Amino acid sequence: MKRTLISRTRNLIDSSVNLRGWVNSIRSHGKITFIDLRDRTGIIQIVTTQKIADLKVESVISVTGKIQNRQASNFNPNMSTGKIEMFTSDIKVLAPAQDLPFDIHQPELNASLPIMLDHRAASLRHPKIKQIFQLQATITQAFRQFMLDRHFTEFHAPTLVATATEGGSQVFSVDYFDRRAFLAQSPQFYKQIMVSVFEKVFTVSHAYRAEPSVTTRHLTEYVGLDVEFGFINSWRDIYLLADKLVKHIFAVIAAKHTDTLKAYNVTIPKTADKTPVVKLSTAQDLVFKFSGHDIRGQPDMDPEAERQICQWSAKEHGSDLVFITHFPTKKRPWYTYPNPKNPAETLSFDLIGGGVEWITGGQRITDYQALKASIKKTGADPKDFDIPYLQAFRYGMPPEGGFCIGLERITQNILNLDNVRQATLFPRDMERIDVRLSTLNPPKPLKKTKK
Amino acid sequence: MKRTLISRTRNLIDSSVNLRGWVNSIRSHGKITFIDLRDRTGIIQIVTTQKIADLKVESVISVTGKIQNRQASNFNPNMSTGKIEMFTSDIKVLAPAQDLPFDIHQPELNASLPIMLDHRAASLRHPKIKQIFQLQATITQAFRQFMLDRHFTEFHAPTLVATATEGGSQVFSVDYFDRRAFLAQSPQFYKQIMVSVFEKVFTVSHAYRAEPSVTTRHLTEYVGLDVEFGFINSWRDIYLLADKLVKHIFAVIAAKHTDTLKAYNVTIPKTADKTPVVKLSTAQDLVFKFSGHDIRGQPDMDPEAERQICQWSAKEHGSDLVFITHFPTKKRPWYTYPNPKNPAETLSFDLIGGGVEWITGGQRITDYQALKASIKKTGADPKDFDIPYLQAFRYGMPPEGGFCIGLERITQNILNLDNVRQATLFPRDMERIDVRLSTLNPPKPLKKTKK
Repeated sequence: MKRTLISRTRNLIDSSVNLRGWVNSIRSHGKITFIDLRDRTGIIQIVTTQKIADLKVESVISVTGKIQNRQASNFNPNMSTGKIEMFTSDIKVLAPAQDLPFDIHQPELNASLPIMLDHRAASLRHPKIKQIFQLQATITQAFRQFMLDRHFTEFHAPTLVATATEGGSQVFSVDYFDRRAFLAQSPQFYKQIMVSVFEKVFTVSHAYRAEPSVTTRHLTEYVGLDVEFGFINSWRDIYLLADKLVKHIFAVIAAKHTDTLKAYNVTIPKTADKTPVVKLSTAQDLVFKFSGHDIRGQPDMDPEAERQICQWSAKEHGSDLVFITHFPTKKRPWYTYPNPKNPAETLSFDLIGGGVEWITGGQRITDYQALKASIKKTGADPKDFDIPYLQAFRYGMPPEGGFCIGLERITQNILNLDNVRQATLFPRDMERIDVRLSTLNPPKPLKKTKK
Repeated sequence: MKRTLISRTRNLIDSSVNLRGWVNSIRSHGKITFIDLRDRTGIIQIVTTQKIADLKVESVISVTGKIQNRQASNFNPNMSTGKIEMFTSDIKVLAPAQDLPFDIHQPELNASLPIMLDHRAASLRHPKIKQIFQLQATITQAFRQFMLDRHFTEFHAPTLVATATEGGSQVFSVDYFDRRAFLAQSPQFYKQIMVSVFEKVFTVSHAYRAEPSVTTRHLTEYVGLDVEFGFINSWRDIYLLADKLVKHIFAVIAAKHTDTLKAYNVTIPKTADKTPVVKLSTAQDLVFKFSGHDIRGQPDMDPEAERQICQWSAKEHGSDLVFITHFPTKKRPWYTYPNPKNPAETLSFDLIGGGVEWITGGQRITDYQALKASIKKTGADPKDFDIPYLQAFRYGMPPEGGFCIGLERITQNILNLDNVRQATLFPRDMERIDVRLSTLNPPKPLKKTKK
């Protein structure tokens, strides 16, 4: 018999159907057992006198029977199927379940994050946790649809790279036959090359940072939503596109995920038609002026200043988000375009909201000689960047720029989660790759490399 | 002045517009210079008397002037803009170009694959090569749209893993702080776990194989289109979905990429309403019967047999594609579901066409005890797979299965390319990560790991 999804049962009163899913709860009342059956579309009450030995929650069962109206006195207003049920004695166990490490059927999962991650296959079944990743899937789709609608071409950037590129200390090395290779810290070089091919490109790709500390904000592997495009009229084109994109993502989430926003007790950030754009130095002056917090002359914002400037933006401009621009040249990667009017600062931006960073981007240096000079200034050798990166600039690269959104971070920000790991299906950090690494004993040494 | 795209110029006769793009060709006739200007939408002829010192092909220029009709005698029927041109003396060089390593403006790029890859930023600009990756972007989108239309949830599988999983010898190890980690050979374990969360999932993810040989078919990093879903009625559901998907991809490509198919002189494979499904042993019998090629009793097809069975399928069933099923248990990964009627063979399949593999998939073992037993049979320790993989099976896993399509391989197959590297933007193999590794001298040794 063909499976029927639980969401359809309300229209199938008096029909015999086959339902399949997980046992969400079991309540025994003498000879009668009530089972809440869950599939991806909903939950329905099954009533049975059938005895099933050792049936536990999360067992997978197949039930066949007639959908019936409940007696009015038994209506459950908290269930979308609260007026119906199935009475059956045809229950088959497709897969038994063992006892769970925690109760995943309470409204809130009562376990610490490390325990949740130790039992990820269990914690991911909790409805509120599942919602995080449904929302995350929507973010990725909204991102791609926005880019495709604007004729950007998707490409796949490689992640195994030959040289430790954007800075040596935080790069993972790979035992690549008899050599070292590295895991890319971003698809930056490849997306720039692809501008010289397709003009406008985007990619969803994994990036790696050998972050030697465990914080609430860092992962060793994360997913980046990357955009890059050429023939900009001005670097403003870049942050204006980022601004439209983030508003598009908000609109899609507001339309599709009201339940999730409600469950997490958050609202989509307020945006204004024109998101404020404030130079770093101006932002620092503003923060000092109305809060006394003095970071004037510093090369960056600090978390306190970020919170303050967001409050200013909300109050003065009705926007929870604000662009901070013109970060110092020495604080931005060497491919960042210096402000022609003041080479000590760059044509770069961060979009911040709720006191945290959402998007980072800017214009890039596209002149071949200028780019080589900028690499040399860092002490690196342009030869290490020649194939295929610098190559692209020898053959005519249009003025261009782009930006990146961390997928886990934007998910975290939207749902106001404490820790980026909560917004990551299988988070990796210094101490954990699924298992706690300290439980793997002894550490497995690396193979020695042939010289 | 705002940039106009070349594709729009035909409707802008007598308008003054600004065009920006790359110099595709330069022809001087005395005082007059003809420049073919290229942007992502097309090519147009620019006519000028302006002298531009040292202008080379692939320079990026900005030209402003009036779009005009050409004299009828100068019409070029091979250009979509062949009846118009721009006469201007307002040409600005946005980025100069150096001499190219090969002529990318000939219909065919006259360079060997290694030379093309040595100069990837240049070869990717060749129109025929660019088309490969436009088609590849379409494949990825068609794949995702098909899955989303069927309510599959997208997820992102991690690629850093704690144990060398599907077989130790071909796995890359990573220097992960003071331990070893590994690069995932596929998202297999994660997609199965996600079935216990979302029932139906897909992912586009990078996978890594430390393939110690350089062949035309293998990459060390590739992109997989992965599908997995639960509550199957029978393992036939799995190959029937794969069949629909591949036909959907074909239909989208046939509609969107006729030019590319023509340029590569290929047609989309012929498909029948019912793609033939043939057991491995039956396929071997058939091949022997009509060609004499005898691989009966072998655990797999060989390339010759694959070609033969595809010819049989085309002739007898009007389908260039054919499913080969029931591969021996010993030739398939340990998570593959054995045929209950004959445990020496599995409920698994390959879709082959044109003598090569397109898709591989099958039903999985979902019983926790059976899965542990299957791991033990390989000599491995189930404990190494406990978190998070086996965990998912302790808490009720529905009957499920899935399949994987190699993105580069399906691109190669559709365009009938000789080498999978041609279908890869930046191919990695034992000898190359962008640069030829042998040119990096000396090999960089791996850091030693603390014990």
